[in-house]
Amino acid sequence: MHRYRSHSCAALRKEDVGNTVRLSGWAHRIRDHGGLLFIDLRDHYGLTQVVVDPDSPAFAIAETVRGEWVIRVDGEVKARSAETVNPKLPTGAIEVFAKEIEVLSAAKELPLPVFGEPDYPEDIRLKYRFLDLRRETLHKNMMRRTQIVSKMRTLMGDAGFFEFQTPILTASSPEGARDFLVPSRLHNGMFYALPQAPQQYKQLIMMSGFDRYFQIAPCFRDEDPRADRFYGEFYQLDVEMSFVEQEDILSTMEPVIRDVFEAFADGKPVSQSFRRIPYAESMRKYGSDKPDLRNPIEMQAVTEHFAGSGFKVFANMIAGDPAVEVWAIPAKTGGSRAFCDRMNSWAQGEGQPGLGYIFWREEAGAVSGAGPLAKNIGEERTEAVRTQLGLEAGDACFFVAGRPEAFTAFAGAARTRVGEELNLVDRDRFELAWIIDFPFYEWQEEEKKIDFAHNPFSMPQGGMEALEGEEPLKLKAFQYDIVCNGFEIASGGIRNHLPETMVKAFEIAGYSKETVEERFGGLYRAFQYGAPPHGGMAAGVDRIVMLLCGAKNLREIAMFPMNQQAHDLLMGAPNEASPAQLRDLGLRIAPQTKA
Amino acid sequence: MHRYRSHSCAALRKEDVGNTVRLSGWAHRIRDHGGLLFIDLRDHYGLTQVVVDPDSPAFAIAETVRGEWVIRVDGEVKARSAETVNPKLPTGAIEVFAKEIEVLSAAKELPLPVFGEPDYPEDIRLKYRFLDLRRETLHKNMMRRTQIVSKMRTLMGDAGFFEFQTPILTASSPEGARDFLVPSRLHNGMFYALPQAPQQYKQLIMMSGFDRYFQIAPCFRDEDPRADRFYGEFYQLDVEMSFVEQEDILSTMEPVIRDVFEAFADGKPVSQSFRRIPYAESMRKYGSDKPDLRNPIEMQAVTEHFAGSGFKVFANMIAGDPAVEVWAIPAKTGGSRAFCDRMNSWAQGEGQPGLGYIFWREEAGAVSGAGPLAKNIGEERTEAVRTQLGLEAGDACFFVAGRPEAFTAFAGAARTRVGEELNLVDRDRFELAWIIDFPFYEWQEEEKKIDFAHNPFSMPQGGMEALEGEEPLKLKAFQYDIVCNGFEIASGGIRNHLPETMVKAFEIAGYSKETVEERFGGLYRAFQYGAPPHGGMAAGVDRIVMLLCGAKNLREIAMFPMNQQAHDLLMGAPNEASPAQLRDLGLRIAPQTKA
Repeated sequence: MHRYRSHSCAALRKEDVGNTVRLSGWAHRIRDHGGLLFIDLRDHYGLTQVVVDPDSPAFAIAETVRGEWVIRVDGEVKARSAETVNPKLPTGAIEVFAKEIEVLSAAKELPLPVFGEPDYPEDIRLKYRFLDLRRETLHKNMMRRTQIVSKMRTLMGDAGFFEFQTPILTASSPEGARDFLVPSRLHNGMFYALPQAPQQYKQLIMMSGFDRYFQIAPCFRDEDPRADRFYGEFYQLDVEMSFVEQEDILSTMEPVIRDVFEAFADGKPVSQSFRRIPYAESMRKYGSDKPDLRNPIEMQAVTEHFAGSGFKVFANMIAGDPAVEVWAIPAKTGGSRAFCDRMNSWAQGEGQPGLGYIFWREEAGAVSGAGPLAKNIGEERTEAVRTQLGLEAGDACFFVAGRPEAFTAFAGAARTRVGEELNLVDRDRFELAWIIDFPFYEWQEEEKKIDFAHNPFSMPQGGMEALEGEEPLKLKAFQYDIVCNGFEIASGGIRNHLPETMVKAFEIAGYSKETVEERFGGLYRAFQYGAPPHGGMAAGVDRIVMLLCGAKNLREIAMFPMNQQAHDLLMGAPNEASPAQLRDLGLRIAPQTKA
Repeated sequence: MHRYRSHSCAALRKEDVGNTVRLSGWAHRIRDHGGLLFIDLRDHYGLTQVVVDPDSPAFAIAETVRGEWVIRVDGEVKARSAETVNPKLPTGAIEVFAKEIEVLSAAKELPLPVFGEPDYPEDIRLKYRFLDLRRETLHKNMMRRTQIVSKMRTLMGDAGFFEFQTPILTASSPEGARDFLVPSRLHNGMFYALPQAPQQYKQLIMMSGFDRYFQIAPCFRDEDPRADRFYGEFYQLDVEMSFVEQEDILSTMEPVIRDVFEAFADGKPVSQSFRRIPYAESMRKYGSDKPDLRNPIEMQAVTEHFAGSGFKVFANMIAGDPAVEVWAIPAKTGGSRAFCDRMNSWAQGEGQPGLGYIFWREEAGAVSGAGPLAKNIGEERTEAVRTQLGLEAGDACFFVAGRPEAFTAFAGAARTRVGEELNLVDRDRFELAWIIDFPFYEWQEEEKKIDFAHNPFSMPQGGMEALEGEEPLKLKAFQYDIVCNGFEIASGGIRNHLPETMVKAFEIAGYSKETVEERFGGLYRAFQYGAPPHGGMAAGVDRIVMLLCGAKNLREIAMFPMNQQAHDLLMGAPNEASPAQLRDLGLRIAPQTKA
């Protein structure tokens, strides 16, 4: 017989009754029932109930066993009596009567209980992560994560992609977020950097003649910790293709992402075909470029109904500035003064002056609008608003006014709030959509200049001609996101592979040709020597896993995450370097000047 | 029709004749045959011959096209005439007559030709890696690499393993090689480190209750560059299992490694079952713990034949020190004075006083030994040596004498040399074997102390009892390697999961319990809370790929390697940090003191 086990703790069934077996695992829970000891023995695969009766030679040792000790049990499989069968447990039809128990490893008193998963402070959980990971929820999340990543690889392989690893020790790139630097011992005073993403490398792979690249790629950004992102490292499903247009990427990646979701949705509906929503439409309808489409609310402009109306606040704004609009946030079933007032208070808590509303009720067989705005604009306009939005008695509507760029984010937040408060959001589904036609440039208010809105490597729609002939802030990019339930889960673009067009695009954003050559030397050089048209995408692995695990916190879906202070409490990182290490690297620690 | 292609450059066959097609790719080679232009159009998938005749509307543009320009070609598929069919090319039955050509991207004059793969200085190849990678050999190697890694993943999955990513930003660990450090911006003066291997993490994964882990893991070591290892980063197939003994790891991993080799051996024979060679036997037979078993030479001790013989050099050594041995390196077919003298000169070039030999020839129907040693020890002893080694006329034998630990490495090198010079090595096969029973400790001559011979996390054979009762330098470890054709391609061990045994093992090597706690805190802490017996292995992905690509240089099997001076010439790393970056990190560059 094997030294440690003949079966896993999930394997035994009724058919095994009468057999002598050997199991190994952790003592998950120990109960003493009238002299009989019951040990739930747990391993990676499952649980088996071990029974030790006082006559067993194993009893003396069994009495010493405590929670999370690792033991080997030899025993006989017996059928449970009908009333003790546990149909929820795969091994619930049997129990193992122990004849021999060997303690493979004892455990000290536990700083963090495994059984029952009681709530515990996060720092304890991270310091004793090996105990935390034994808990059912985290164990399940980790297994789901590995299966999701494996599924991604399979689907990408089936779609004709090949995985290539790109370097992790590379050059600092001045775009985007802050790099992690790695001092060079062989070239003192010089630094490598960890890649924020393999963006330039994957484009170089296309320049190198490969056709369809992907990678489950570690990425590194030294951004201040935030609840909704990992400090330090994260993973993306990184993709690039040659000889493609935007449509090719969308039609190639949509089934991959859909199939990943379907495989782990536990039966929840997943969008079969992803809507394609232009950025401008998404901002107007949902107040966001990552709308939660489970929320059925779609905003509409109702400016005309307020222009010249008796509601002077809006009417004067509209009269004074042709760019001013009034947007309506319809709120089905929200037609009570209490709800509308609650939303108004919420808006004030968000720093807004308030949130105007109308709600409709049935009076004497007729639908009529109520609330101060309805009074101010009068019956006819109130009815026009109701008709435009398709609302009925029992519904409400909220209004924001101003220049859309100033209020869109707040309007989007209000839409989310209304949907959640009124329970309009169907939580048990995955609504996936493409957001397309992102603006190429945006106005940088702080620096009073035009800058790239997203990825400077994207191709502007219309190419060189558009760059030369059109208003920069009106240019769209071949740039697209996938959103799911209010999160951006992927982002990509068709790249600008033409060196002259790249130089022109940077020039408009105020960067000289020399800057391009200096900052993106490898890639810019490659574009000079026969560059195929190409494009790609990167999907956030951690975010997708989080959605598919139903986890609220990124630390619930990574094996050994850092805490919010960027400490690895398990391994004790970061820590001090030895004087010899610093000498080797030619570095000195600067005297602390901060408080 | 698709914007860029209806077919790849590898797709068209005789059946496509008459069809109008669209291809895109690089102009691989351009020939002008009596006015007709022939363009070999290349993409990731293959080559197609494009013909442009002077009447074609595409001719004017075709004349401007140069090597490595990226073009789109619309044209008609025509059958090649019988005498121009190229059976070596999948598309060799057809050619495409161009009707329209669009230049998608021009190329400047090439610093490195792609077609024909002429030899070029490595620094140019690395700076223009995107051109180098378009070359057939490198392109093939990269594709083989991705397929090998994918195969590893499939086989590990089939064997019930799950892949987990372990952190890349972690704690500096003082064992082993030099760490790369990553200064912390949020905790100035503190450093993360890149993992030399996920050793501690994979053991922690076992402590966390997972059963079978693997990872294609990036590893980082700041060792001086060497021709046979990557500077900076490399990949290993990292494996760990719980509730196992050595036999379980061997029998689980042997089929995985064998199947990887078989899948990419191109029909070369691969060891079906791996021999298991104890370390001591490997050193005695092959003079190495990573023997090339394609070399049939096995050394033997022949001390007795020289003890008290007329060859006074050896006889006196043997008489003066009971630890002295004489080893024979048999050399089938090496029986000529010219060859023996050449080996002798080689040995002198290696810093040895020389290499004694006997060779046998047939004289008057009898086999007789020749050479100075044969004369000195006489006919009877010469014949005894010959009989023991099973040699015949036309063969030779070389001898080394002394304490085995002093000459084993040289004897191993001589064995290799003899095998290669005499062409005894069958190059076209993969000989895989396990080396087992490595010593647990070794004598550190510089520090005059006992230290771990390999992995300090290994379990000594015999456990605590052996640590307490036996001579440390005689202890064996549950530690094993896989060797292939003279290279170590994998290494592993059963781990020491018992905290007391770990403390004892470190104590013998001169490390206090406090040191263990300080250096391996996370792991040592985990051992206190119910640790399953576990063990694993790590296989060198790069080395395996190199063997299976038949590549001589690691830079031939990695996409974007650094050069031998630890520079990434493509991206320009390492480079200088900005003053702001250094300020953020609280670092100063020390004044240069080196020359």
